[in-house]
Amino acid sequence: MKLVQFLYDEMPHWGIISEAKEQILTLQDNKSQFYSFDEVISSFFKAKQNGFVDAEKIALCNVTLLPPVLPTKNVLCIGKNYHDHILEFDGSDEDIENIKKHPIFFSKATSAIVATDTPIKLHKEVTNSVDYEAELAVVIGKRGVNISREDALTHVYGYTILNDITARDLQQIHQQWLRGKSLDTHCPIGPWVVTKDEIEDPQNLAIQSIINGEVRQNSNTKHMIHTVADLIMHLSKGMTLEVGDIIATGTPVGVGMGFDPPKFLKSGDRVEIVIENIGSLVNVVE
Amino acid sequence: MKLVQFLYDEMPHWGIISEAKEQILTLQDNKSQFYSFDEVISSFFKAKQNGFVDAEKIALCNVTLLPPVLPTKNVLCIGKNYHDHILEFDGSDEDIENIKKHPIFFSKATSAIVATDTPIKLHKEVTNSVDYEAELAVVIGKRGVNISREDALTHVYGYTILNDITARDLQQIHQQWLRGKSLDTHCPIGPWVVTKDEIEDPQNLAIQSIINGEVRQNSNTKHMIHTVADLIMHLSKGMTLEVGDIIATGTPVGVGMGFDPPKFLKSGDRVEIVIENIGSLVNVVE
Repeated sequence: MKLVQFLYDEMPHWGIISEAKEQILTLQDNKSQFYSFDEVISSFFKAKQNGFVDAEKIALCNVTLLPPVLPTKNVLCIGKNYHDHILEFDGSDEDIENIKKHPIFFSKATSAIVATDTPIKLHKEVTNSVDYEAELAVVIGKRGVNISREDALTHVYGYTILNDITARDLQQIHQQWLRGKSLDTHCPIGPWVVTKDEIEDPQNLAIQSIINGEVRQNSNTKHMIHTVADLIMHLSKGMTLEVGDIIATGTPVGVGMGFDPPKFLKSGDRVEIVIENIGSLVNVVE
Repeated sequence: MKLVQFLYDEMPHWGIISEAKEQILTLQDNKSQFYSFDEVISSFFKAKQNGFVDAEKIALCNVTLLPPVLPTKNVLCIGKNYHDHILEFDGSDEDIENIKKHPIFFSKATSAIVATDTPIKLHKEVTNSVDYEAELAVVIGKRGVNISREDALTHVYGYTILNDITARDLQQIHQQWLRGKSLDTHCPIGPWVVTKDEIEDPQNLAIQSIINGEVRQNSNTKHMIHTVADLIMHLSKGMTLEVGDIIATGTPVGVGMGFDPPKFLKSGDRVEIVIENIGSLVNVVE
């Protein structure tokens, strides 16, 4: 099922998209607000068990989609998790061996999160090298720490798409990546969260980025160095993963910086990230 | 005034500490819960205006202090913001010049936050080099982006103490610092937030870390390379600072790793961070 957050009557709501994709079935009784992703998930499972009999039906065309997460949790990211992408940044065999042992984890500020169909800002006053990165994102549905590889996927609620937009110059000059990864609007997430029962194998999904119709990244999640289960195992060693945490799983070869000359984003670009069985996340550059 | 979050009747509450320091005056009517730091601050200013006439009075000795933040916001940190601390890590003059231009920003996962008097875990299964870092922390009280140096302090609600506990081995092998900075319990914050009207000059506060009575760090916030106002200006370039965001301002010379041999934390250590006009944050290593 596809879980969405949306604006309706000027209030944020949560719901699921009906099979015909034209309607949303709401999760909230009497328009109560959810304050945590725990509450969203509980309501989801309760409503699902009841066959969504109490749900209000709203036409999809009448709403604005919001990011399908509550914006205040951790956005945990993995750097250099596809072989070819490491090579595109002049990575050596030694780099790859190192990353196999010790994945590179960083985060994006939650203030950067936006929904599908929301404009991406270029922030020309601080950067001239804004780049896209297509990524499969995992949404944690069960809290846990020291999670084994075997149990890892039981902690997943579902999957979504994340565009890990990056100001390459800031990423480099500030040494640590937070600032280059966290400018406002530089974390599009959506359009919805697909529950994990609909994703047979998270390690076999076609993933693409398409800029103005040109396919730039064209890979498959089977090429990840660390699988989703590996990443949950590594990240949760001594660090509790909370319900609603997002894990972005890295990007394949084909980012703008990898081209000669680089193909950074420019005003008017239509940036689409497509992942098999999830959907399409589209943002236009302001 | 000193803003605290505390556990009372098994529920989280917010309040201020009375002048005699023996009582808390509560901010909530009828035990309603706050879901955002915005709500906490609004209630604070409303109650202050009314002279706290509606406040319930609770003896400080009857409560357990919680972190004086809501745990879901960004914890934004600055690396290497005191000259002497850079030298203790073999930093060069070039490093310092670079950092003057481009401060190093990273983050800690919000799941690492704990209150004063909460044990620090060593996580021996993943690290053998857990270190302390005394830091002045700024609590943002007014949302903003592209904030000028001149306006910066108007966005501050108050100041608190943060111990930026760091697993040095993980910090190094994972390249980006998030994982080494985010193990559970590795972000003690507290004991309270002192409102900014009581801090005449955030750049002139004595700051110390004291391990089992031994003073290890002993400096003053006047030695910061980037002042609080500078940091707000830099961080907010293109990135919105949200109400409740925490900015940790870096640590002076004297961390455990700077000694030969290193003085990392061990079981039973009493770790106290003291900042002038704020108070004392105490955590014992489990």
